[in-house]
Amino acid sequence: MDAIQKNLLEQVAGLHEIPEGAYNIRSDGQLAGRNTTANIDIISKQDKSGIDIYIKPGTTNESVHIPVILSQSGLQELVYNDFHVGENCDVTIIAGCGIHNCGTDTSKHDGVHTFYVGKNSKVRYIERHYGEGDGRGENIMNPQTVVHLEENAYMEMETTQIKGIDSTNRITRGDLKDGATLEVREKIMTHGKQYAKTDFHVELNGKDSSTNIVSRSVAKGESHQVFLAKISGNNKCAGHSECDAIIMENAHVDATPELSANNIDASLIHEAAIGKIAGDQLIKLMTLGLTEAEAEEQIINGFLK
Amino acid sequence: MDAIQKNLLEQVAGLHEIPEGAYNIRSDGQLAGRNTTANIDIISKQDKSGIDIYIKPGTTNESVHIPVILSQSGLQELVYNDFHVGENCDVTIIAGCGIHNCGTDTSKHDGVHTFYVGKNSKVRYIERHYGEGDGRGENIMNPQTVVHLEENAYMEMETTQIKGIDSTNRITRGDLKDGATLEVREKIMTHGKQYAKTDFHVELNGKDSSTNIVSRSVAKGESHQVFLAKISGNNKCAGHSECDAIIMENAHVDATPELSANNIDASLIHEAAIGKIAGDQLIKLMTLGLTEAEAEEQIINGFLK
Repeated sequence: MDAIQKNLLEQVAGLHEIPEGAYNIRSDGQLAGRNTTANIDIISKQDKSGIDIYIKPGTTNESVHIPVILSQSGLQELVYNDFHVGENCDVTIIAGCGIHNCGTDTSKHDGVHTFYVGKNSKVRYIERHYGEGDGRGENIMNPQTVVHLEENAYMEMETTQIKGIDSTNRITRGDLKDGATLEVREKIMTHGKQYAKTDFHVELNGKDSSTNIVSRSVAKGESHQVFLAKISGNNKCAGHSECDAIIMENAHVDATPELSANNIDASLIHEAAIGKIAGDQLIKLMTLGLTEAEAEEQIINGFLK
Repeated sequence: MDAIQKNLLEQVAGLHEIPEGAYNIRSDGQLAGRNTTANIDIISKQDKSGIDIYIKPGTTNESVHIPVILSQSGLQELVYNDFHVGENCDVTIIAGCGIHNCGTDTSKHDGVHTFYVGKNSKVRYIERHYGEGDGRGENIMNPQTVVHLEENAYMEMETTQIKGIDSTNRITRGDLKDGATLEVREKIMTHGKQYAKTDFHVELNGKDSSTNIVSRSVAKGESHQVFLAKISGNNKCAGHSECDAIIMENAHVDATPELSANNIDASLIHEAAIGKIAGDQLIKLMTLGLTEAEAEEQIINGFLK
């Protein structure tokens, strides 16, 4: 693995070296490393690109890293990864995709991640997207995440797209059984002429199921962001979604949350706010000696933290 | 005018007798009374059903009543009413439609109201919809309101649909110039198998334009409500929308507000909450001696006040 690839790995997975536990590293469309453990098995799919990850019931305090890096300009791929998490697990899954594109062709990674989370299991899922490259080739990522939560399962999903993705269409679908909970925290920053669309639909089918979707985003330059989030309350359940966006320069943001209450015991709330950085916040930091640009950066970092 | 017609008039326009000021009463598709004043003229359209209302610049403290009543089962009509409000006015316009349907045919009133509000003018617009009748005929109303606000114009719009409308598709469009403000307060209650859809789109085109859209609704029985509200911020502007809905029995409510921020100085916010009446509120009123039904009625009345 060369320096570019190593840097991509660090950006998307925080990995300086080979991770502990189970992992599967995909580099330029090829398997670049895999490790399985007594409790976690990883098997390549035979019928299409991708892997099946099997986590045995009762597995706790283990992690799976499945980073994907693309350093060849113009590489385009579609990958299916399925996570089969047994009952009573407590695991962390770290996915992510880094693209280094110095060419003129479009690099593209589309990943479909499907989670089957067993009863009473807890999954922490972290996904980071990162692009770089000084070529004219575009970096495109279209991640799709499908989450099936069994009774009392809990999943926490953290997605971050901070830099260098020219176009992204992020689709997340969830269906929850009795007592299940899905927490989503999304952070997005776009600049230049980038386009980012996120589209959530969570179906609260189970009694006492709940979801909380929080999206924070910063849109700079000429970039355009679209936020869609639909929560369907089909049983006694609680749903909340929140979208806060900062716009700068000539950026556009469209936010369309949707609540669908189909049961008298469904309690659904959403909030959204779009605006620029408050002038008095900037002035406060500038009186402390920061330039306007530094003050803006401070505020954005705090907002996306 | 018979007793049924008089009661409809009272329900939709609060009129016990002939109103003061300008008015135009439409009953079963015919003109039933009209009065004009020195400042307010009302002229029937020649090319289609409807009237043009001309309000002279500088007219203040005057009102226009334009109620519509339908007491013949099966009557269906489409009416265009245009309000030409001069500059520097301060007027109140009371519209409304009441249907009494004791037959088996569908009664339907579709009205398109277009407002051209001049600079610095203030308009208070009140619209009430009411249906009754023990027949099997349906009562349908599809009001469309189009609001054009010139510089620094202010319009307050209060719409109420409390009873007896089986199906309604309410469309409201607004475009605002510099300094203009549109305030909307909507109240809806549906029951039985009723369907009510409201669809707002306000374009904040002018500098320092603003809008505030507040919808409160109660959905009972098997009824279905859909709330759409889009605010486009195309300049330095402020927009806020809020949808609060109480669901009871087997009712469904879908809320989809949309914010579109197309200017760095646009500040847009929305909030929505859907849920049933809180159990502790009910219990509190029941300990004061109310039955559960009475307690619910009290809470709903307070919510829609």
